Amino acid sequence: MPAAIKIAIAGLGTVGVGAVKVLQSHADVIAKRSGRAVEIVAVSSREQNKDRGVNISAFQWYSDPVEMARTSDADVFVELIGGSEGAAKDAVMAALESAKHVVTANKALIAHHGFELARLAESKGVSLNYEAAVAGGIPIIKTIREGMAANSLSHVYGILNGTCNYILTTMRESGRAFNDVLSDAQKLGYAEADPSFDIDGIDAAHKLAILASVSFGTVVDFSAVHVEGISHISAIDIQFATELGYKIKLLGIASRDNGTIEQRVHPCMVSVKSPIATVEGVFNAVVCDGDFIDTIMQEGRGAGEGPTASAVVADIVDIARGISVPTFALPVDDLESIPTRPISDRVGAYYVRLMLVDKPGVFADVAAALRDNDVSIESLLQRVRDPGEPVPVVITTHDTAEANMVSAINQIAALEKVTETPCMIRIEDF
Amino acid sequence: MPAAIKIAIAGLGTVGVGAVKVLQSHADVIAKRSGRAVEIVAVSSREQNKDRGVNISAFQWYSDPVEMARTSDADVFVELIGGSEGAAKDAVMAALESAKHVVTANKALIAHHGFELARLAESKGVSLNYEAAVAGGIPIIKTIREGMAANSLSHVYGILNGTCNYILTTMRESGRAFNDVLSDAQKLGYAEADPSFDIDGIDAAHKLAILASVSFGTVVDFSAVHVEGISHISAIDIQFATELGYKIKLLGIASRDNGTIEQRVHPCMVSVKSPIATVEGVFNAVVCDGDFIDTIMQEGRGAGEGPTASAVVADIVDIARGISVPTFALPVDDLESIPTRPISDRVGAYYVRLMLVDKPGVFADVAAALRDNDVSIESLLQRVRDPGEPVPVVITTHDTAEANMVSAINQIAALEKVTETPCMIRIEDF
Repeated sequence: MPAAIKIAIAGLGTVGVGAVKVLQSHADVIAKRSGRAVEIVAVSSREQNKDRGVNISAFQWYSDPVEMARTSDADVFVELIGGSEGAAKDAVMAALESAKHVVTANKALIAHHGFELARLAESKGVSLNYEAAVAGGIPIIKTIREGMAANSLSHVYGILNGTCNYILTTMRESGRAFNDVLSDAQKLGYAEADPSFDIDGIDAAHKLAILASVSFGTVVDFSAVHVEGISHISAIDIQFATELGYKIKLLGIASRDNGTIEQRVHPCMVSVKSPIATVEGVFNAVVCDGDFIDTIMQEGRGAGEGPTASAVVADIVDIARGISVPTFALPVDDLESIPTRPISDRVGAYYVRLMLVDKPGVFADVAAALRDNDVSIESLLQRVRDPGEPVPVVITTHDTAEANMVSAINQIAALEKVTETPCMIRIEDF
Repeated sequence: MPAAIKIAIAGLGTVGVGAVKVLQSHADVIAKRSGRAVEIVAVSSREQNKDRGVNISAFQWYSDPVEMARTSDADVFVELIGGSEGAAKDAVMAALESAKHVVTANKALIAHHGFELARLAESKGVSLNYEAAVAGGIPIIKTIREGMAANSLSHVYGILNGTCNYILTTMRESGRAFNDVLSDAQKLGYAEADPSFDIDGIDAAHKLAILASVSFGTVVDFSAVHVEGISHISAIDIQFATELGYKIKLLGIASRDNGTIEQRVHPCMVSVKSPIATVEGVFNAVVCDGDFIDTIMQEGRGAGEGPTASAVVADIVDIARGISVPTFALPVDDLESIPTRPISDRVGAYYVRLMLVDKPGVFADVAAALRDNDVSIESLLQRVRDPGEPVPVVITTHDTAEANMVSAINQIAALEKVTETPCMIRIEDF
C-alpha cells in the first residue's frame, strides 16, 4: 500500500467535527477503499480547547488556517470555515498555491470565486472538490461531472435549501403563518438565528450558480442569478395552492437554450403529482435533464453533520484514489461566458393573489389591467370573508410573458381598492 | 492533449448503436471532458451490413468479438452482447487477459461472474466498469462506489425492472388484468417476446446481487437471491392495495446486519406516501441507507437506448480521465463472503388474499390456522360477489415471522372451502 495521504482540516464546527468522526470511525474501510490510509495531520479552528466530542490531540494545531494551508505537510486542505471572503478564501488560495488539493463545503466561496480558484487548481495540477457545497449528502456534483459526462444538459433544477422546504412543508401541514413556523424552525436548529441567507434565497442561489456552471460548462456567475425568497408567502397562498392542486416550493432553476442561460431562485407552484413536489421537510432534491439520459432525480438530506461530512470525506477518498476531474467538468479555458436570459423573458403561467375591497366594480378594473397587458385568465377563485374585510381573489393565468405580468400587477397594485401588495408566484410545469 | 483513447465495441444492438451515436454526436465535448479524444477503432456484431442509422464504415470490423478482444489495438473493450456465458463472457475474459479495460452493460455476466472478472481485472491493472448494468441511466454504481465511500451501508433497495413497474402501474391505472397489460407492453416494446426474465424477477435479481456486493463489500452471489415475479398479481390485489393505502411494486431489497446479508426480489406493498411509491411506469429508483448520509434516493430511466448508452459512455470517459476504482468498491481480497439470511427469517407485515366459498364456518377455519401459527390479524376486508361465487377475503397482519406466515398459508390453502392458491404479498415499511 502506498504512503498515507495527509489531511489538514480548517474549521471544526458541525461539519468539521463530522468529518473527523467519519475518518476516525471508518478508518479501516476508508483505507481499503482508497488504497492507502487517510490520516488527519493538522487542524485549525478559532478555539483550541473546546469539548467537541472528538479527540484532536494527535493533530498539529494551527490558530491560523492560512498558515496551516501554507506550511503544513498535508496533501489535502479541507476548508470548512465558510464565507466567500476572508480566512476561507485566503486559506484556499494559499493551499492551492502550495499545490495542495482542496476539499470545501463552502458554496459562497465557489459561487463567487469558483472560476479563479479552478484556474489556480488547474495550473497547480491539484483537485478542487466541493461536493458538500451543493445539496449536502446528495452526490450531485459527481453525478453531473462524471455520471452524466456523455450528455449535453438542458435543465437543472431543484429544492436546494432545506430550511425553506421545511418551513413551506410545515406551513402547509399545519396551516400556520410564516413567522410562526420560522421561529419554531429556529428553536429546532433548522434555521439560523439570522435566517436571511436561507429565507431570502441566497443560499439556494449560491448552489444554483454552481450547478449551472458544472451542468452547462459555463463560467460560474452568481451575480446573474435572479433571487427571491419565501417570506412573502402567506398561509392563505398555501391554502389556495392546495385547492388548485399545487404545492409551493422554493426552487432553483437553470436552463441552457440557444446560447443563453437562465438562473433563477424563487417560490414556485408545482403540481402535487410532480416528483419534486413529493420532496418534503428538510430534504433536498436535484433534477437534471440530459439529451441521452432523459431525466434523473436525486433526493436526500441537504444539510446536517452526517450527510455533509459524508460528502467531504467522499471528496477526500476520490483524491486518495487518484481521481482527478476538472473543477467544473471542463478545463477552465473551455468554460464559456454566455449571455443570461433575464427573468423578464420568462414565459409561463402565474398565480396572483389580490386583496380587494368588496365593492361593486372593483373586479372590472382588475380585469381591464389584465386585458391591457395581454394576460389571459385560466382560473379565478374568490373567498368570502367577514363583511367589510378585504376579499382574497386568486387568478391563475395561461402562459404569459413575465414582463406583461409584472406590468399588469403594477397597474393592479396602484388601484385604490387593492389593499395589499399582490402576491405573485410562478407556476412551473415540471 | 495526450493520444486518443481507442474503443472497441462488441454488440451493435440498441445500446451499442446508442453508444456510437453518443460518441459521434458529442465527440468534441467528450474529448474536452476526458482530456483526450475518444475514438472508436473496431466493432463486432452478428451482421456487418445492416442499416443501423449510424456509419460504422470507418471502424475495423470483426465477426468474432473474442478475436477483437484479443487482437484489436483498443484500450477499452465495450461488451454489449449480453448473456452470462458464451461470447460475452469469453470476450470479456479475453479483453481483461490482454490488459484492456472493460465496460459492460451485462448484468447477468456481472451477477454470475463478477468476482472472478474483478480479480482478473485487478491482476491486470485495468478497470471493469458496469454502470449501465444496473438501473440504466441512473449513475447508482458510481454513487455507491465513490459518492458514498465514507459510509457503511445498511440497506439498498429499489425498483430495478422498468417492465414490471410499467405493468403494475398500468394495471393500477386501468384496472386491467396482468396478461392483458403484458401483451400491450410487448406491443409497445416495453416487454420482450419472451418476458420471463423480466416478469419472473430474474433481471431485477441480477441487478440486486450487484448492488448488494458494491454496497456491502461482499462477494457477488446471485444464487443467494430469493426471487419471485409478478405474474400472480391480479387486478383485485391492486384494488385492495389501493383501498389499504398501498401500491404494489416489484422491489429488490438487500440489507446487511450482524454479519449476515439478505437479498430478495418480490412484489411488495408500500405506503402510497413513501418516496418509492411515487416512481411509476418504466422509471427505476434506488434507495441507499448509510450511517452518515442517512437516505439517498435516485430515480430515472432504467432502460432504453439513450440512458443506457449514456451510462456506457460515462464509464468510458472515466477510463479516459484515468479514474480507476476497485470493481466492487474494495480490492477483491477485501470482499467478504458472509452468510445469507434466508427469506424464512423475514419478520414483517403481510397481505393475504383468499378466495373462499361463501358458507357458514369457513372463516372460523381460516382464523384457527392463523391463531395456530401465531399470526395476528391487523385488518380484514371482505368483498361481496355474486351469490355462489367465491368471495375474496383480505387479511393484513401485524409483524409476523415469514416461516409462521407460510405455515399458516399452507394450512389455509389445504382447506376445502379455499378455492384458489392464496395470494401473499409482503408489506414493507419504507
